[in-house]
Amino acid sequence: MLIGAMEAGGTKFVCGVGTREGEILEHVSFPTEGPEETMAKAVEFFSRHPIQGLGVGTFGPADINPESPTYGSITTTPKLKWAHYPMLPELQKHFHVPAAFDTDVNAAALGELTWGAARGLDSCMYMTVGTGIGVGAVVDGKVLHGMNHPEMGHILVRRHPNDTFAGACPYHGDCLEGLAAGPALEKRWGAKGIELADRPEVWEIQADYLAQALVSYALIFGPKRMILGGGVMKQQQLFPLIREKFKTYMNSYLQNSYLDDLDTYIVPPGLQDFAGLKGSIALAVLASKVHSL
Amino acid sequence: MLIGAMEAGGTKFVCGVGTREGEILEHVSFPTEGPEETMAKAVEFFSRHPIQGLGVGTFGPADINPESPTYGSITTTPKLKWAHYPMLPELQKHFHVPAAFDTDVNAAALGELTWGAARGLDSCMYMTVGTGIGVGAVVDGKVLHGMNHPEMGHILVRRHPNDTFAGACPYHGDCLEGLAAGPALEKRWGAKGIELADRPEVWEIQADYLAQALVSYALIFGPKRMILGGGVMKQQQLFPLIREKFKTYMNSYLQNSYLDDLDTYIVPPGLQDFAGLKGSIALAVLASKVHSL
Ligand SMILES: Nc1ncnc2c1ncn2[C@@H]1O[C@H](COP(=O)(O)OP(=O)(O)O)[C@@H](O)[C@H]1O
Ligand SMILES: Nc1ncnc2c1ncn2[C@@H]1O[C@H](COP(=O)(O)OP(=O)(O)O)[C@@H](O)[C@H]1O
Ligand SMILES: [Zn+2]
Ligand SMILES: [Zn+2]
Repeated sequence: MLIGAMEAGGTKFVCGVGTREGEILEHVSFPTEGPEETMAKAVEFFSRHPIQGLGVGTFGPADINPESPTYGSITTTPKLKWAHYPMLPELQKHFHVPAAFDTDVNAAALGELTWGAARGLDSCMYMTVGTGIGVGAVVDGKVLHGMNHPEMGHILVRRHPNDTFAGACPYHGDCLEGLAAGPALEKRWGAKGIELADRPEVWEIQADYLAQALVSYALIFGPKRMILGGGVMKQQQLFPLIREKFKTYMNSYLQNSYLDDLDTYIVPPGLQDFAGLKGSIALAVLASKVHSL
Repeated sequence: MLIGAMEAGGTKFVCGVGTREGEILEHVSFPTEGPEETMAKAVEFFSRHPIQGLGVGTFGPADINPESPTYGSITTTPKLKWAHYPMLPELQKHFHVPAAFDTDVNAAALGELTWGAARGLDSCMYMTVGTGIGVGAVVDGKVLHGMNHPEMGHILVRRHPNDTFAGACPYHGDCLEGLAAGPALEKRWGAKGIELADRPEVWEIQADYLAQALVSYALIFGPKRMILGGGVMKQQQLFPLIREKFKTYMNSYLQNSYLDDLDTYIVPPGLQDFAGLKGSIALAVLASKVHSL
């Protein structure tokens, strides 16, 4: 049985087909343009495969509430052509199979829990630090939904004393995303993240903001593992810095065996760049267990 | 059928018996002393009633993981006599009935969802602002657990520019609890909360810290209603101030019908001072649905 998976990113789309066990048999990738062009390519790809289920992990914000009349749509987004675009309904016009729809990062969290760095656990968090900061989570085996999907990339953190950058979030200025996503790094230092690799002061501030956020997430919903991916996290030197600052901010307050060894608590993705795509398969499989695909 | 409920607070214990529908038929309250004296009173009370289930909502931190060898115990606590005390096992020595064990605030959140201010919803958050700041939550109909229960009273908030108080949390200094629990108010202003009622500068700072925390919780797990109780929240003027600052910090970022009217989003407890006790009944009832009491 084949499952179709679509990871709809702000920069690129990845479509694939795979097995219920998360093996990707074939995949394609193309840049994100307007919805007509882009979705036509996705539909064309899936048409060539006898898929029996479909999982979609999308950039947000999106309406992921199955009870809502606009379920499966992108909602408000600065990518104006995509605002209020009915992504899942468009796919369902062409493919009459059970489908699941969630954010790319919620999909990635579920993918990592099912087949990646959080295998065997019943909760985890997945954060991408890229063009924005997106976070998804699994709690008690289920993808975390409240009023809608999490938006935890936008929480406030305390300003680092050496940081005079105003912040780049159009809503909040210096929220986490406004201070620590890739574009914020670039604006603060006048160079792209990859060109800043050997400047320790850059990563000191960066790790400080990310660690503050991780401590809040740990205190608030206590995921059993934290997985950090996305372009900016290719700077592997961030991991030990984040762990050290996490420890300092937490100051032994949470006593829990999951935190005993932060090297195994705060980790890179186990599925590398396939977390989102495999996660979309996992979404479809999980939905199928509920709806008996 | 009678259910026993125990709300184990740091200041007082409340024990009651009630129906599965949350009606409390009888209850007693006594001050929290050492575990022997206090638990003997609880056991004595429940012995007088033919209870067929038991729900416990306790001060924390406590081990609420049923898989853990120390399930049902208080863990580390500054109340030294209670540290590592096996509260649930002690009750189970006397009462051989199905039992549920969680934090007082998780119980209160479930109670409010079942019979109080969040009735009809599948998620909510309950915060008590008293001697400490404790928060519990229900997500997708279930009490929120991760590594253990939430500890979200200890997140960091940004310092109010007019606040020079160092903070009173022994772990973090100026975390939310360190800045905004009752004892912090008292230390900052040199008078008890109740005596500060007519000093607007007190409540301006207090509302700012609480609103920052609520915005983080909304972004992170998106509860559909936020219920604020505890001694300090008896200052009803806090509610409009918190709502106003919540709105400012959120800056229209989350677009969701639950947030359209903050007067119905950020609210006082519907069960008044019975949230914890009724919630403990709800814990037992919910557990009974899983384990068929
Ligand atoms: N090796 C790298 N080191 C530091 N920053 C990087 C690196 N690669 C990409 N980035 C930054 O990450 C951002 C893009 O994130 P990415 O996760 O690749 O895409 P997106 O978030 O759009 O899906 C850009 O701001 C880019 O400068
Ligand atoms: N009416 C009030 N106004 C302001 N603060 C109050 C009021 N009543 C109690 N408090 C404060 O709340 C704290 C006690 O909180 P409470 O919720 O009653 O108990 P606990 O948290 O110990 O269960 C104390 O710091 C007290 O000063
Ligand atoms: Zn923001
Ligand atoms: Zn603290």
